[in-house]
Order: sequence, then C-alpha cells, then structure tokens
Amino acid sequence: MARILTGIQSSGRPHLGNILGAIVPAIELSKDPANESFFFIADLHSLTTLKDGQTRSEYVRAIAATWLAFGFDTANNTFWRQSRVQEHTELAWYLNCFTPYPMLANAHSFKDKSERLADVNAGLFTYPVLQTADILLYDANLVPVGKDQKQHLEMAKDIARTVNAQVGEEILVLPESRIDERLMVIPGLDGQKMSKSYNNYIDIFLPEKELLKVIKKIVSDSTPLEDPKNPDTDITFQLYSLIASEDATAEMRENYLRGNYGYGHAKKALHELILEKFREPREIFDYYMNHEEALEKILVEGEEKARQVAQQTIGRMRQALGFSS
Amino acid sequence: MARILTGIQSSGRPHLGNILGAIVPAIELSKDPANESFFFIADLHSLTTLKDGQTRSEYVRAIAATWLAFGFDTANNTFWRQSRVQEHTELAWYLNCFTPYPMLANAHSFKDKSERLADVNAGLFTYPVLQTADILLYDANLVPVGKDQKQHLEMAKDIARTVNAQVGEEILVLPESRIDERLMVIPGLDGQKMSKSYNNYIDIFLPEKELLKVIKKIVSDSTPLEDPKNPDTDITFQLYSLIASEDATAEMRENYLRGNYGYGHAKKALHELILEKFREPREIFDYYMNHEEALEKILVEGEEKARQVAQQTIGRMRQALGFSS
Repeated sequence: MARILTGIQSSGRPHLGNILGAIVPAIELSKDPANESFFFIADLHSLTTLKDGQTRSEYVRAIAATWLAFGFDTANNTFWRQSRVQEHTELAWYLNCFTPYPMLANAHSFKDKSERLADVNAGLFTYPVLQTADILLYDANLVPVGKDQKQHLEMAKDIARTVNAQVGEEILVLPESRIDERLMVIPGLDGQKMSKSYNNYIDIFLPEKELLKVIKKIVSDSTPLEDPKNPDTDITFQLYSLIASEDATAEMRENYLRGNYGYGHAKKALHELILEKFREPREIFDYYMNHEEALEKILVEGEEKARQVAQQTIGRMRQALGFSS
Repeated sequence: MARILTGIQSSGRPHLGNILGAIVPAIELSKDPANESFFFIADLHSLTTLKDGQTRSEYVRAIAATWLAFGFDTANNTFWRQSRVQEHTELAWYLNCFTPYPMLANAHSFKDKSERLADVNAGLFTYPVLQTADILLYDANLVPVGKDQKQHLEMAKDIARTVNAQVGEEILVLPESRIDERLMVIPGLDGQKMSKSYNNYIDIFLPEKELLKVIKKIVSDSTPLEDPKNPDTDITFQLYSLIASEDATAEMRENYLRGNYGYGHAKKALHELILEKFREPREIFDYYMNHEEALEKILVEGEEKARQVAQQTIGRMRQALGFSS
C-alpha cells in the first residue's frame, strides 16, 4: 500500500482551475484501495506570504469545504490542518539542524522568490525544511508534485538520508516524488493559465448571477453572430469541453461550426453546465460554509488521526537525538 | 514583579566556571521575591552543534541535577527542558515569517560561526529566531545576557515589534536585555578562562581521587618549595580565593608569602576546600544522577507550568494570525 501525501496550498479560495487540475484528480487517486491518502492544508506555509489572519482562516475553511464538496472520503483517509499538529514545526527544527545552509541558499525557489518578493523573510528561506518535515512526519512513500517542486523532494530525501546516517538507523522513510503528468492546465478568463495571481479565475461556488457575470468576462474574438466560429481557439469552448460529456462537447462543436451561434450563447451554456454539473458540490460547499461546527468536527477528527502518526515519527526522532526521557 | 528568563546551554556538563560564574549568581537573583525566574535548558539549541543523542541526554541530566544541587527553588520558579514544550518550535515558525532574511544573514554570531564551523546548518542560521521564541513565549521582561548576545536581544525586540504592528495589538511583550556585569571570569587549569572548549575545566562532581588528579594539573611556576610565592599570579590561589572565606584566603596568602609552602600543599588545600564547600551540592547531584525518576518528576512538573504560560502566548498568536478555530 502506498501512502500518498499532498500538501494543499492555502493562499486562496479554490477556483475551477484548482478543482479540475488538482482536487478532482487527487480525490480520484485516493479512491484506489491500494492507496492511503494523507492530504493536509498547508496553512503554516501560507504565513510566509499572507499575514492577515482573517483572510487565512476564511481561505482554510473554503478549501476544506471544497475538498469535502468533491467527495474526499475523510473517514478512510487523513485530512488535517498543518498548523493544528505541532509535530510539523518540532520536526522542522530537528531537520533544520541537519540541513546544510548552502542547500537552502542555492535552492531555485528561494532565488526566484527573493528576487520577486519585497518581504524576503526567514520563513521563505527555510520553508523547504518545513515541507520536508511535512513529508517525513507521515512516512509518505509517494508525493505527487509539479516539476517546480522536484528539487524540494530531492532535498527531503537528502535530509532524511543525513539523519538516518547520523543516528545509524532508518528512522525516516525516504519518499519518492512522482511528477504529476496528469496535471491539466486550465485556461482562465483571458486564456492564460487560470490562476489567482492573474485574477482570471472562475469561482464555481459564487451565487448564480455573480457566476454568470464572471463567465461573461471570458475573452472571445469579434466574429459576427452569424458566422461559423473556431471552437479550438475559443476559451469558452475549451472550458466547456473540460466539463461536459463527449456528446455535449460534440454538439457544442457543431454549434460553433454551424454559425448563428454566438459566444453569448456558449457562455450561457457554460454557466448552465457549471450549475448543473456542480450542483451537488455547490450545495455541500454552502452547507459547510454555513455550518462551521460540522466542518470543524471533521477537521478535528482528521487532526487526531494525523497526530497519532506524527507522534510516532517524532518519538523515533526524540529517542535517537536524546530528547526523550 | 520582573519575569527573568534565562536559557541554559546544554552543550556540556557544568564545571566550576559555570557554577561560580553563572549558576550561583542566577540562583541568588531568583531568591529576590520581587523576581519570578523562568530558567530552561536549551536542549533544542544544542542540536545545532551536538548531534549525538546519548551525550545530549547525559548533559541535560547533569545540568538539571547541578541547578537543583545549588538550591534552585523549582517550586517557586519555573524550570524546564525547552524540547518538552512544543510551543517553542511552533512560535519559532510564526516568527520566522516576520524575520527579514538579511537580519539573520548579517548577524555577527552567524558570520562568526559560519567561518569557524564545518557544519553550517540551517539551525545555526535561524537559531536567533528560536531564541526570540524562547523569550517571547514567556512574556519575559528581563533577559540577563552576555555582551555577545546583545544583538540577539535587539532582534527579539524588532521581531516582536513587527508582529505587534502587523496584528495591530500588543500581543507580544518587548523584553529588556540586561548586560550581566556580575559575570566573573573564572580561570581554568591553564589560566585561560575556564571553558569546556579549552578542556581546562574542573568538574567539581568528580569522585574525590579523580578530582584531586584534575586539580594537580593546575599550572604553576617552578619556584622552589622553600621560597616565598606570589599569590596574585598563581592560578591555584585565584581559584582558592574565589571559594574560600576571607579569613581562609588571608591565611592562604600568608602561606604563599612566607615560603616553605609548596604549590602541592595549596592544591591539596583547594581539593579539601572544594570537597568541604560543595559537600551538600555533591550529595544532591549524586542523588539526582542516581535517581532519574526523581529528577524527571521535577522537570515534568516544571514543563507543565511552562506549558501553561506558553499556551497563552501561542493562543494569542494563533488567534491573531488565523490559526485558531
């Protein structure tokens, strides 16, 4: 059985790009009975760039509600907020002491961020070590990552090897990365990759009218209503085809090619499709956003499960490093 | 009432230099009813340079036993092992995210250590942030430090100010440093400052014969037995005078000046004085070293007290930064 670990960024409310590109595929993977999924909301990491507390807790709630809305089975997997399991930061300190300073100073991600951001803080510098702690704490075998994270996974393995060599025992499990080839790039309103930072995203949990307003902002060309249109270059069609059945997509393609079918029609169809396809997730999402105590209960249960695993790893570390009685 | 916080290094078993120079004065200070003392064994810090677990736990036990041997009143103060209160590393992570990277990169202590040590790890780099967490976690008003630590205290204040400004509330107490002028320099066997790193120290808890062997190693000049000797340049006399009463010191001075009194006699007298003066501490030390569970009980009680204070500070941080439910 493979233990799959995924850290979920908490720097925004999930949008259609996150849902189709990451959340739905991860939940699909978690349904394979050969896997055991450990998914956590990486709220401690978000502090490196997001300082406002109220925004953070709103995001975290929305993220948790989204994963539940898309059917993540928290009873048979483990789902928690990183900040609620103190072993993450404790292990991060131990690992800091086994991480060569130059390894962090030369990391691509730090070089990139320190050039781009105004607030270059020590959290940004050491966050690969916290990430390493996240992984090693749960004896994860498999960590699906994007290409940009491959170097961090190599660091995690290096650090684990250093600790094991130091203490003369395999107390930490070496994780394998899996570069996620499935990762789809979902186009945003302007055709660029849908992303919070480009402000081109579709929040599928918006009330119907607001959702329609956003969909109407999808960029299209100026082909007149009567003329045939090219579905393969149109953003609305691309988004539609990512959600619709094959039949519905084929029908939409015909509409485009036939002419007398405007982008406004297509956007309306996309709006209806989103409402229909995500009817149940929208309901579940709203339920959890309006029943905080129900959401909290699920997370607290997950945190108890996570803590039990984390405490075993921390116990081995404390024992080996002389921090146990 | 001033809350005094002191972190006790755990990179060695305490020697006479530590005892006369730091432990006894700190315990004296703690007896002032106007003060409340929070003393902790900084074992997490020791991991930056000491990796061996068994050595660390032996040192920690010996250090705790030494403080108890010299009468530290753990019932009316707070005494704990840093590693046993998870809030230290949790707060350190939060503070990392408010610490400018260049502040750490330019710290004297890091520049110094990174030139001197082979193992320049991320723990060495971020340890001023952990130290800041140690201080802020307990709302310490006063932190007695050596001159070399003054910069770290300024960092702690800067970081606390940054957090308070960010959250718009005074959730962290700004500590005041007090440069410790009392700090005596105790000479070692070779006349240099007594220090573990110079391997010139006297371990007063050694069995009688071994203690005598060490004392015999004190460097002296080659003045013949019959001749008068200069007490003011002799190391044995200096050590003797630091421990003996005024009368006994005056008598010893006469012995030196009179002649027919050899360094061997003086060393024997120093040996007897140590055994007599530290009879009770030696007994208490041995008791705790042989009754681990009694020592453990005292530390665990201290850790419960420490945790109660620490949890309040962490609670304020979590609330302000969006990590509470």
